[in-house]
Amino acid sequence: MDDRTYTADAEPGETVTVAGWVHELRDLGGIAFLILRDTTGKIQVKFEKDEMDEDLVETGLNVHRESVISVTGAVEEEPRAPTGVEVTPESVDVISEADPELPLDPSGKVDAELPTRLDNRTLDLRKPEIKAVFEIRAEVLRAVRDAFRDLGCTEINTPKIVATGTEGGTELFPITYFGQEAFMNQSPQLFKQLMVGSGLERVFEIGPIFRAEEHNTPRHLNEATSIDFESAFFDHTEAMDACEHVVKSAYEAVAQNCQAQLEALDLADDFEAPDGEFPRLTYQEALDEINATGELDEPLVWGDDLSTEAEHVLGQEVGEHYFITDWPSEIKPFYIKDHDDDEEVSTGFDMMHPSMELVSGGQREHRYDQLVAGFEQQGLDPEAFEYYTKMFRYGMPPHAGWGLGGERLIMTMLGLENIREAVLFPRDRQRLSP
Amino acid sequence: MDDRTYTADAEPGETVTVAGWVHELRDLGGIAFLILRDTTGKIQVKFEKDEMDEDLVETGLNVHRESVISVTGAVEEEPRAPTGVEVTPESVDVISEADPELPLDPSGKVDAELPTRLDNRTLDLRKPEIKAVFEIRAEVLRAVRDAFRDLGCTEINTPKIVATGTEGGTELFPITYFGQEAFMNQSPQLFKQLMVGSGLERVFEIGPIFRAEEHNTPRHLNEATSIDFESAFFDHTEAMDACEHVVKSAYEAVAQNCQAQLEALDLADDFEAPDGEFPRLTYQEALDEINATGELDEPLVWGDDLSTEAEHVLGQEVGEHYFITDWPSEIKPFYIKDHDDDEEVSTGFDMMHPSMELVSGGQREHRYDQLVAGFEQQGLDPEAFEYYTKMFRYGMPPHAGWGLGGERLIMTMLGLENIREAVLFPRDRQRLSP
Repeated sequence: MDDRTYTADAEPGETVTVAGWVHELRDLGGIAFLILRDTTGKIQVKFEKDEMDEDLVETGLNVHRESVISVTGAVEEEPRAPTGVEVTPESVDVISEADPELPLDPSGKVDAELPTRLDNRTLDLRKPEIKAVFEIRAEVLRAVRDAFRDLGCTEINTPKIVATGTEGGTELFPITYFGQEAFMNQSPQLFKQLMVGSGLERVFEIGPIFRAEEHNTPRHLNEATSIDFESAFFDHTEAMDACEHVVKSAYEAVAQNCQAQLEALDLADDFEAPDGEFPRLTYQEALDEINATGELDEPLVWGDDLSTEAEHVLGQEVGEHYFITDWPSEIKPFYIKDHDDDEEVSTGFDMMHPSMELVSGGQREHRYDQLVAGFEQQGLDPEAFEYYTKMFRYGMPPHAGWGLGGERLIMTMLGLENIREAVLFPRDRQRLSP
Repeated sequence: MDDRTYTADAEPGETVTVAGWVHELRDLGGIAFLILRDTTGKIQVKFEKDEMDEDLVETGLNVHRESVISVTGAVEEEPRAPTGVEVTPESVDVISEADPELPLDPSGKVDAELPTRLDNRTLDLRKPEIKAVFEIRAEVLRAVRDAFRDLGCTEINTPKIVATGTEGGTELFPITYFGQEAFMNQSPQLFKQLMVGSGLERVFEIGPIFRAEEHNTPRHLNEATSIDFESAFFDHTEAMDACEHVVKSAYEAVAQNCQAQLEALDLADDFEAPDGEFPRLTYQEALDEINATGELDEPLVWGDDLSTEAEHVLGQEVGEHYFITDWPSEIKPFYIKDHDDDEEVSTGFDMMHPSMELVSGGQREHRYDQLVAGFEQQGLDPEAFEYYTKMFRYGMPPHAGWGLGGERLIMTMLGLENIREAVLFPRDRQRLSP
């Protein structure tokens, strides 16, 4: 069936069958043009009304836009055609007729609001600049997995249905599991930690995470893609090295392999993979730098989390990807290890794009007693997590890791204004379908 | 932190620091051996009691098995050692002490039941033959993704939280989504079909699927990994070609890149990638072949589904991977297209390993009116699927695809007796944790 020639491969002198969507029809009177579009590009089909079979002309010029057709004919050079060639049709076959009225114009001539686009993603993804985002997304995932394999990681898949959330009962979607209460997992955190104590030692996972956050913002999703890394015998600095390697690899792969997509997004001239090491600021240095700008109403003090505004002020100062290290222990989760010489300061780190946080990580608490105490300090019942904590009594190595928001990586890489642009079928407070 | 030398890389003549788990202690009186294990293998550490520092000997010989330690010392050739080398320690550091009693013996000397192993996966995965399964699983996923890219596919990720199940209300896990009823998705079927009508045209997805099947068997999971393919302008025969390519690529990659893992599983001598084309039997031929064996109590007639027993009888006859094509329309889902010249016979196919079904696929119904009629015939409300059906009015090309059970692929490839052996943390009727 798919013995068609892609439009991009149609060479002058050949007779080809091309198939795809009717992108445009231009009727100039005695001559008319149909622009046919497939996944590789577009091609012009010429109808000379007086010289061609009447039925053929009728079929070609009465088909609705966005119908699926196939066209067989000779390819000739034609400098005035969009791709320099055109097809003179011998036959036109209408494979799947489209309604005359479309909810969205894939030619992009009429703008559509995001909700309309998301309701009609199939049509939306016929636009080259939308398609390009998802082709780049696929390339990023490929590159990230290769980068993890460079680092000696084994890919794992951990369960999405769980009995307890990673960080307790908040922000969890409840599910009914054969009469038992269960939840959709917020993070593979605890599972990937269990794997570093196994013979695998160093692992990664790319998979969905689910967070029942109530707020709708341009940078939150209720179902997102998490890119997770964890390694035995790594400390937080080595985990940061690994993070830098993975993020740079993603940018480099896109710069190298996605020129056409970057052009479709009008980014080809400006796109640069980060070079050099990402600066590593301590939390205290970050506070000082933010406070020195005078841009916040009130200066930040030790123990404050960074607001979106604070992140933004600091991002403008730094102007590139960077790490914030040595966070106050009190605002990091129980599984993050404190510094041995100062338990007020954790080994937790964030990796930031100038516009937002991308990664959260750190060295983990691998000592059983300290881990259980940490649960209690955060008001969690260690008993409910016994499947996790008990493995720390059987030889758990020191380890570190991080989680990277997949959609945030794409969003910041491509300058998308809404994280929903980085996912095919976003899930948010209002949107559950399609 | 991780400046250790892997045990596999310790060369005679070097002084190294190795770190890992205490695999075994053998005290022969004046001399004692500690076997240290890491992800790459094992190394012998020699303690000569009379010639070494007393504290060093005490530390090394009193540490519990499966504790995490690091050892620094000179590597020397020693033909009697398991790997031909041994380390004479200068220092031993106990990093993470294990309890003296373990719920599971990672040396494999004491057998454990599957539930105990799954409750203690961290320890279970310290066994080379268990670790090997998951290293092979990771290689299979890598190879499968590469095979899809050979075929020109774009990787997609579709939502796992959905308003309606793929095939209606049965076997769905309900979830509470901000007060609305929602479900965990059974299959990316409808979403991947929406993508072939977009500019992507040919896609794949590897991700979790969720099925609330009540029955507990050695080959069903309630959360599994689905490997999905869908292509515009493909018919069912081309979809089968793609399926064969992907499955063969997985086998070939394992044969080529996982020799050590196959040895750990005692499969190195027997493992073979399938060569030649997979036979394609029609459903009628399959019935005839099964009935001819006389092994079923009652002969199968047109319209019967194949029982596990029937699959088994046929698998023994065929003896290799094979397809069953041309199924009765009445026992295939609404989205499978019937043959144009005989609407009693569908384009649906299954791809079988001799021991079980691995793949289900077919050409899809791309004609709007027929699709909506199909919903109604299966007692489904087309209104509830309007987000899907309406895209078929805007130029949906003919298309075909399939879904492959990831765990079944691993299970049949490695001859595992229970599908739970192919997933780190299985989910079934009873098991929700870890």
